[in-house]
Amino acid sequence: MVLKSFVDVHPDSHFPIQNLPFGVFRPTETSPARPGVAIGDYVLDLSAVSSAGLFDGPILKDSDCFCQPNLNKFLALGRPAWKEARVTLQKILSSTEPVLRDNVALREKSLFPMSKLEMLLPTAIGDYTDFFSSLHHAKNCGTIFRGPQNPVPLNWFHLPIAYHGRASSIVVSGTDIIRPRGQGHPSGNSPPYFGPTQKLDFELEMAAVVGPGNELGKPIEVNDAAEHIFGLVLMNDWSARDIQAWEYVPLGPFLGKSFGTTISPWIVTLDALEPFACAAPEQDPKPLPYLAEKVSKNYDIALEVHITPSGQKDSSVVTRSNFKNLYWTLTQQLAHHTINGCNLRPGDLLGTGTISGPEPESLGCLLELTWNGQNALSLNGITRKFLEDGDEVTITGVCKGEEYNVGFGTCSGKVAPAPCP
Amino acid sequence: MVLKSFVDVHPDSHFPIQNLPFGVFRPTETSPARPGVAIGDYVLDLSAVSSAGLFDGPILKDSDCFCQPNLNKFLALGRPAWKEARVTLQKILSSTEPVLRDNVALREKSLFPMSKLEMLLPTAIGDYTDFFSSLHHAKNCGTIFRGPQNPVPLNWFHLPIAYHGRASSIVVSGTDIIRPRGQGHPSGNSPPYFGPTQKLDFELEMAAVVGPGNELGKPIEVNDAAEHIFGLVLMNDWSARDIQAWEYVPLGPFLGKSFGTTISPWIVTLDALEPFACAAPEQDPKPLPYLAEKVSKNYDIALEVHITPSGQKDSSVVTRSNFKNLYWTLTQQLAHHTINGCNLRPGDLLGTGTISGPEPESLGCLLELTWNGQNALSLNGITRKFLEDGDEVTITGVCKGEEYNVGFGTCSGKVAPAPCP
Repeated sequence: MVLKSFVDVHPDSHFPIQNLPFGVFRPTETSPARPGVAIGDYVLDLSAVSSAGLFDGPILKDSDCFCQPNLNKFLALGRPAWKEARVTLQKILSSTEPVLRDNVALREKSLFPMSKLEMLLPTAIGDYTDFFSSLHHAKNCGTIFRGPQNPVPLNWFHLPIAYHGRASSIVVSGTDIIRPRGQGHPSGNSPPYFGPTQKLDFELEMAAVVGPGNELGKPIEVNDAAEHIFGLVLMNDWSARDIQAWEYVPLGPFLGKSFGTTISPWIVTLDALEPFACAAPEQDPKPLPYLAEKVSKNYDIALEVHITPSGQKDSSVVTRSNFKNLYWTLTQQLAHHTINGCNLRPGDLLGTGTISGPEPESLGCLLELTWNGQNALSLNGITRKFLEDGDEVTITGVCKGEEYNVGFGTCSGKVAPAPCP
Repeated sequence: MVLKSFVDVHPDSHFPIQNLPFGVFRPTETSPARPGVAIGDYVLDLSAVSSAGLFDGPILKDSDCFCQPNLNKFLALGRPAWKEARVTLQKILSSTEPVLRDNVALREKSLFPMSKLEMLLPTAIGDYTDFFSSLHHAKNCGTIFRGPQNPVPLNWFHLPIAYHGRASSIVVSGTDIIRPRGQGHPSGNSPPYFGPTQKLDFELEMAAVVGPGNELGKPIEVNDAAEHIFGLVLMNDWSARDIQAWEYVPLGPFLGKSFGTTISPWIVTLDALEPFACAAPEQDPKPLPYLAEKVSKNYDIALEVHITPSGQKDSSVVTRSNFKNLYWTLTQQLAHHTINGCNLRPGDLLGTGTISGPEPESLGCLLELTWNGQNALSLNGITRKFLEDGDEVTITGVCKGEEYNVGFGTCSGKVAPAPCP
């Protein structure tokens, strides 16, 4: 029989008792931030659960990891603590367990309607890295930026290419994104354009949240890498294509990306995703031994991007993709990141890169969907080449099971006008 | 008459009363970290000075910014607080002021011999950015990596090129650097090399430490940018050239850099550097208005790199350069970094990029000095193309005045062998 919660959960909900994603919230504007898990339309306050003494396992019993303004301390404890928390939470939320179900006072103190509270960034992010792990995306971008001859550099097939992103400008879903100003690529012999970006784009991504991490100089072995990944979030790596195209040679993307990156507030754990694991694609050439895994795992996560154009009520789906379109796995990304001794810290974020699929309807950004603005996209009769002020972009992700879904909720942001000069 | 301290300061010292660089130290292994300033061969403990009530100006009187394990809170207060601290410290350390000079108990509690204590990273670094602001370095690297046709991309002359670096692996001077392993560029049709880097290099850099910073979406105007720079440190941006050459297209340097970056423990303030300010180079083409400064300032800081080869006692100077070799100023770098709305936070680090000069003896890394390993360098009869295990690299920087020096001390690190596979 399928596990059920005493909290009412709609069959379409992303957040049944099988999911229990972790986030950070505050019940009111003035109350302190604290960790919670989502259950149906409610959030269970983990600081209240902890204060009530319900975390009674050996690791969490005397820990203050849930009386913190972020999840970093919990993440640092590693998988045994994560498993213990999940077991406890599935128990106290189950329909057959009275400890919370029948304690009205504790329920009132610990269960908050999700619609009435404010979600915050779930972790303090020390470093944010963005990979480039969809072959379809690499091929399309290479063709657009560098032409159809060898659009994918040879190195791409040997290592998961990545760059360091900007941690300070990562924001939680619901935060407006201010259109950046900057220098755009000059055409012909004219000087570079300067002003608000004319090619504002979204990028459909997901990101792994790092657990314990490693000491400087001590790489993480690829077959141990999953022990260092707590879970996944949705991510929109907003991009200004004209700024990016002009600046990125030879040191990579910088101001074309660093004006804002949105993540979803809920971290879905690898434990909750496990029933939706699937085989990763065959890799040719065979990866070097430090990237060769015993089990090479992806996840079947259906992803959609919706745009609500400025002034409109209705959104249109502009792409449907899937996490399993990634060529390099999360564990290969993490092992590669540390092979040189680079240290990862709890709460670090590893973006997957844009998750494009092989079909025209599964491309993960407007750059690809409109082929750098050549073909306008129709959204219920309104056309777009790139994003306009007031447009809202929403990413959703969900694993569809027979009995229940495990979902990520939404990751959304609205474009605000550039500041006056 | 030149200001003098009651603390004995050798005429060659980097740390006279005119300097007073800020750092973080602990007197013993078990004592808590606290801020200090260097004076001669001593460090003045700012938590002790603060507890004794000697910071009596309006901003610092009731602040706990010096009772912190890093300088971030002090940096966030901005230039008025920095000026107030400098005035107070120059007063209480001067030869004519009795408050500290004649208080034996307070002197014993607050002045520690530098040789006996441990220096730590001065700030918690949220984000680290590395620029590419020496034209000589850009030209040489472009020629080596991409050939002599147009070695410097056109964008270089229009904007200060930069990339996001890795914050977690920044270490303080004196920390060993473990030789990274990774994939190196394949030769011909062979598969990529994997193993310890065969082209380990140093890079002579300096870095600006950010003060108050800005809110997301609110750029800092170039003529206000100096208000957001607290001071400078020496930096060695260790690089693995074979890893870098293979990975950097199209997203820039990643594992070729992220295994370690060393900074000097002392932040020399812009106030202390002001007597050594000089005009920045003419820029052609004229920068866009957002990069056009009323006053365009560099600093005359003599820089040297010494290498002590493994097993040797004596070091050799391998390069002599100067901060004033930079084309883009610190304030242009900072204004450019925020023009898209990217937010800077107190303690962030902005590296200058390798500071190469025009002469063969002033090149800032082995890649340039040995022309990618083609010409060996002689160090007292020992030859080097790249760094070997046990080699120690030390950067020094000093402004030479007629009456006193303002120096940075040293930034050094020794190469430790790669971990066993």
